[in-house]
Amino acid sequence: MSNTKVLPLLESEAPEAVAPCCPPLTERPFTAEEAETAARMFKALGDPVRLRLFSLVASHEGGEACVCDISDVGVSQPTVSHHLKKLKEAGLLTSERRGTWVYYRVEPSVLAAMGKLLTMAPAAA
Amino acid sequence: MSNTKVLPLLESEAPEAVAPCCPPLTERPFTAEEAETAARMFKALGDPVRLRLFSLVASHEGGEACVCDISDVGVSQPTVSHHLKKLKEAGLLTSERRGTWVYYRVEPSVLAAMGKLLTMAPAAA
Repeated sequence: MSNTKVLPLLESEAPEAVAPCCPPLTERPFTAEEAETAARMFKALGDPVRLRLFSLVASHEGGEACVCDISDVGVSQPTVSHHLKKLKEAGLLTSERRGTWVYYRVEPSVLAAMGKLLTMAPAAA
Repeated sequence: MSNTKVLPLLESEAPEAVAPCCPPLTERPFTAEEAETAARMFKALGDPVRLRLFSLVASHEGGEACVCDISDVGVSQPTVSHHLKKLKEAGLLTSERRGTWVYYRVEPSVLAAMGKLLTMAPAAA
């Protein structure tokens, strides 16, 4: 009866408590459910503008950025906001409103889980 | 004058010779060009069926698989072929025809490069 629609990678705000969704891609075939979860994250990074914004937030001083920090990606501020929201929906960014602005921050545990998916499993016996 | 349209991750067939396209996402903002290259790979994995097929090939005995090895992902053989071709175009799989069948194999260097993108850079000073 548990709600499997919730992104399993983000069961908690605490990075330590995050359960990785899937084994390395090289370990065994993904189930349909695992593929759904992981594909959602890859898809979020599958757009050049979104990927640029993500790297901008990820590499920004203090590990966070607001729309006010982003000016040179060649799209309007509403478009930037839209993409940041999409990245948040995919579980890749978290956000916090402080005064006028919403600050976005990379969810390091999700990044780590995605990185783990892409590691080569030790050669099977 | 170099042809930057060629996927820089796959300059050679030899895995050792592959130049990673981009720094870790957390290191500095991606340029538009880097984002184009990396987004293409993430997008290829951003479809659940394609991701399942990729994990199926990646985890298959001997590290390779042909359409003849794939039967239980709930899509037709032509659809499987279509997705495998897309993964190949994105540089994630290589292929080789042997007799009747085309065998697909994961390009480990590309997987490693994508994994590197997702590593957290050491905290900036």
